[in-house]
Amino acid sequence: MPRFIGAMAKEIERKFLVKGPEWRSLVEDRIRIRQFYLAANTGRSVRLRIANGEMATLTLKFGSRGRERDEFEYQVPLAEAEEMAEFAIGRVIEKTRHHVSHRGRLYEIDVFGGELSGLVIAELETPEDVPASELPAWLGQEVTGDARYYNASLALSDVPEAVA
Amino acid sequence: MPRFIGAMAKEIERKFLVKGPEWRSLVEDRIRIRQFYLAANTGRSVRLRIANGEMATLTLKFGSRGRERDEFEYQVPLAEAEEMAEFAIGRVIEKTRHHVSHRGRLYEIDVFGGELSGLVIAELETPEDVPASELPAWLGQEVTGDARYYNASLALSDVPEAVA
Repeated sequence: MPRFIGAMAKEIERKFLVKGPEWRSLVEDRIRIRQFYLAANTGRSVRLRIANGEMATLTLKFGSRGRERDEFEYQVPLAEAEEMAEFAIGRVIEKTRHHVSHRGRLYEIDVFGGELSGLVIAELETPEDVPASELPAWLGQEVTGDARYYNASLALSDVPEAVA
Repeated sequence: MPRFIGAMAKEIERKFLVKGPEWRSLVEDRIRIRQFYLAANTGRSVRLRIANGEMATLTLKFGSRGRERDEFEYQVPLAEAEEMAEFAIGRVIEKTRHHVSHRGRLYEIDVFGGELSGLVIAELETPEDVPASELPAWLGQEVTGDARYYNASLALSDVPEAVA
């Protein structure tokens, strides 16, 4: 009999470029991520993410690309995920995600590889409005809402200036 | 911990309009289906199907729309599937699928409701090349490869002439 899993979450997310290496001594965890899009249209996307070469997650996102979206996640068998890479739209993104805590808040710092080498983006997911004074010093320019840094853009568009 | 399920199949499928009611006495099983598309582009589609109001299946199809496609299926929680109906592209299709056997082959006969009432389509999924003489008499015109009768077209396009 089929089994199912699922999770649904509202996402409130801020994104920043990262300007220094000081965060590196604070890394608590790292995950190798390989991800690609199977569909990407205005207001919706279907993404496959393979973590540490061992777990594959299919994520469907709907709604406006601002700070809040409907998101549905399902585990899929690794072999099938690998097979679907053949149907990727745009590039397959390779990045290492680092977990860093600052003032009790989790920052996910993505260090991109391949064509996007040189790009480092920090994400802060929080329901609060965090004042600038409480942000870590190694954060650079905030790029929340900047379409060039959407995950889908990084897969589908030209390499952003921060890298090129 | 998340659990996963999955299945992958190559599909070889013929489609026919149905011209008479003679198949009705042969029905072995029926399933109420409600389905909609979450993404549909050339060479790929993402569909959610809710069967008998109790089981929801997400299907990703890739490849050319001819007789053979790569297909990946995953169960999703019913409540999440219902929620995703809000994000349907085009119409939500309502149909009752009937299973009928003829000469040892399974025919799936879809009787559409709603806007598509009047449309009845039979599907035969088989690796063999079945000669016309072995097809049941209640089959009408073959519409295999006719874009108007693709599942995605029925959801996304104008109602076909056979109905309108």
